[in-house]
Amino acid sequence: MKILVTGFDPFGGATTNPAIEAVRRLPDEIAGATIIKLEVPTVFDRCADVVRQAILTDQPDVVLSIGQAGGRAALTPERIAINLNDGRIPDNAGQQPIDQSIQEAGAAAYFTQLPVKAMARAIRAVGLPSQVSTTAGTYVCNHLMYQVQYLRATAFPTLRAGFMHIPFLPSQVTAQSNQPSLSLADDVRGITAAIGAIVARDGRGDVPTIEDSLN
Amino acid sequence: MKILVTGFDPFGGATTNPAIEAVRRLPDEIAGATIIKLEVPTVFDRCADVVRQAILTDQPDVVLSIGQAGGRAALTPERIAINLNDGRIPDNAGQQPIDQSIQEAGAAAYFTQLPVKAMARAIRAVGLPSQVSTTAGTYVCNHLMYQVQYLRATAFPTLRAGFMHIPFLPSQVTAQSNQPSLSLADDVRGITAAIGAIVARDGRGDVPTIEDSLN
Amino acid sequence: MKILVTGFDPFGGATTNPAIEAVRRLPDEIAGATIIKLEVPTVFDRCADVVRQAILTDQPDVVLSIGQAGGRAALTPERIAINLNDGRIPDNAGQQPIDQSIQEAGAAAYFTQLPVKAMARAIRAVGLPSQVSTTAGTYVCNHLMYQVQYLRATAFPTLRAGFMHIPFLPSQVTAQSNQPSLSLADDVRGITAAIGAIVARDGRGDVPTIEDSLN
Amino acid sequence: MKILVTGFDPFGGATTNPAIEAVRRLPDEIAGATIIKLEVPTVFDRCADVVRQAILTDQPDVVLSIGQAGGRAALTPERIAINLNDGRIPDNAGQQPIDQSIQEAGAAAYFTQLPVKAMARAIRAVGLPSQVSTTAGTYVCNHLMYQVQYLRATAFPTLRAGFMHIPFLPSQVTAQSNQPSLSLADDVRGITAAIGAIVARDGRGDVPTIEDSLN
Repeated sequence: MKILVTGFDPFGGATTNPAIEAVRRLPDEIAGATIIKLEVPTVFDRCADVVRQAILTDQPDVVLSIGQAGGRAALTPERIAINLNDGRIPDNAGQQPIDQSIQEAGAAAYFTQLPVKAMARAIRAVGLPSQVSTTAGTYVCNHLMYQVQYLRATAFPTLRAGFMHIPFLPSQVTAQSNQPSLSLADDVRGITAAIGAIVARDGRGDVPTIEDSLN
Repeated sequence: MKILVTGFDPFGGATTNPAIEAVRRLPDEIAGATIIKLEVPTVFDRCADVVRQAILTDQPDVVLSIGQAGGRAALTPERIAINLNDGRIPDNAGQQPIDQSIQEAGAAAYFTQLPVKAMARAIRAVGLPSQVSTTAGTYVCNHLMYQVQYLRATAFPTLRAGFMHIPFLPSQVTAQSNQPSLSLADDVRGITAAIGAIVARDGRGDVPTIEDSLN
Repeated sequence: MKILVTGFDPFGGATTNPAIEAVRRLPDEIAGATIIKLEVPTVFDRCADVVRQAILTDQPDVVLSIGQAGGRAALTPERIAINLNDGRIPDNAGQQPIDQSIQEAGAAAYFTQLPVKAMARAIRAVGLPSQVSTTAGTYVCNHLMYQVQYLRATAFPTLRAGFMHIPFLPSQVTAQSNQPSLSLADDVRGITAAIGAIVARDGRGDVPTIEDSLN
Repeated sequence: MKILVTGFDPFGGATTNPAIEAVRRLPDEIAGATIIKLEVPTVFDRCADVVRQAILTDQPDVVLSIGQAGGRAALTPERIAINLNDGRIPDNAGQQPIDQSIQEAGAAAYFTQLPVKAMARAIRAVGLPSQVSTTAGTYVCNHLMYQVQYLRATAFPTLRAGFMHIPFLPSQVTAQSNQPSLSLADDVRGITAAIGAIVARDGRGDVPTIEDSLN
């Protein structure tokens, strides 16, 4: 089994992004699966092309994308990507789309094929906070998750793909009161556990745990 | 113009739900539109039938559903409903679906037809906190928002429909530290402002404000 | 019984301060006690003089000062004032003391004489969030609370005095995500309930409720 | 220079306490100072005796006590301890004092002799979140900080003493949404940096940085 794990580069004026830092530090093999690591630019127009090229080159069975969600305290596997670009800030190429569809011919949303509850449970089992999320936002993270799903739906039908958000690093919030963070070592442990769950559940679907949720 | 405004009854052991309390206190006319008020049971299997019956009877142009989102500090118009029931707790009929589709033949998600950014802006203009949300959760609120969209897609093509979450009331969080709340009077003012924006933007789409969002 | 209730004017670039707005709207009599209202400047060097003058003029039995604590979700009666000025921002006269004692000859801290737990319980009984606090900060609020205690200790031995923080108004946080707020009407109701408890417990000390607290 | 660093044992039903775990993992020498490590029971009546005995035996120049503050996101050096026991929950001996003075003859509060701003700055300089705190609560943490100050005031006049709170560990909040945490490795790094600042500022007082604070 081959798993392509992508991580975004720094954006919004930051000098680091825990996503690519954690991806770089993953082992080359997890639970018997080969791990391929890929840096992706935080640019609406380009990020999906970079992943598409890697899918063509490396032919992975699974694509797991990692992005930073400042403000969250837990590792959060995402359930769904929506067909909407709406930037709070410009991306790294200076683009800031407002209320635009990602694909005119695409679905309103795509659910992930990854076992998000099993991933969250596996992360918690190694002693880290994790919860399933139902929104990847409307910035480049959701954009990439959506685009990879669109690629799957239109060109790579056997692919399984998904996204996980991770918190700020402690070094990003040194002077902010009450902003949660997680260490890079824990990001690596958490992503590794999540990938272990992806491998373990392969072909068997998700587990039916009860998760916190909005009303 | 006729607007059906729905509010859920209390659930999860609570004795009150700000949603139906606020809906009951709305004026009968807002910005020239006639307001029809409807209480809806917090039950997966029944809530949509009650709204469908009211659509048939009252023939509204717009359906705006209101629900409580404990933990949020602002009034949050929802962008999208997803095809998923996943209950953290049982509903008022004791049902707790886990990871089930709402409609096998439905879309993965439906975007609202309501001008969510104009609604948020109008709420802020009357001095209340508001932000657009990209998740209505996976409980009965999302279920109802999805089902009304499914009705629109399959039976009422001219309907515009959407959902707005409101915070806890102060009386629901008297002993909880740091749980945000909003008063019933402010809920009524905020929903009234949002409806004013729905009327004002009718036929013209949304406004392109920049909103906070996850990365 | 005569109660002097003070409220600060706007500071830090804000155009409103819920403290003075709420104080202005209090009734002139609460639970049989006469209420005297006083606006106080958010200035380290001047606020205590204004209160001292009012104590001399009005001869109150109790001084209750009200201040805004942005970020808190509840009305929080303060237990204690500490002998420290340390400004995060300048006051309304441009002063920003850093790590200075308020009174060289003063105690390290003074506990309030007001029944803070009875106040919190009375506020919760009218359906509003309230918790006892153990820090009034190190800005002008703590300064005034300390100075009134110092006046009591040195010049007005029969006075009972204390402080209560109140949250932002909704209109102060319209565009901030997850910032809690409370309406002016609820501030007035909460302060009124707290004053009712001060009157009811007069001469009998506080009630021994169990309150949330840090470890 | 000799520094006694104390850490509490688990309490409130928890099986671990990051305080003692981090203290155990400190190096035996930091910035030239000898580090003596001491486990302290989370018991109002006993914790101070254990520290007093260690002061007599080891004759440290500085006592730094470490405790867990669930809910905080940063390492928080404490400015002040107050003369009040008020337990939200019983301690490990089943005692739950409500609104009791710690020392009838003690001051209302004692400020720390440690350079809390220099400690916070040093922690931030190693990439971890830190803020000065003005409340250690009213449970066993504040109790111990107060009692060590009382010992200093009454028996060990050359001692410098203080307290620092640390967040939950990730493993303590795996299933809680939005509860911040910090890893044990980062606790050790942060405490080490704080001790480095204590040594570096010895005899020179604190640094006049501007810190966040309540109003």
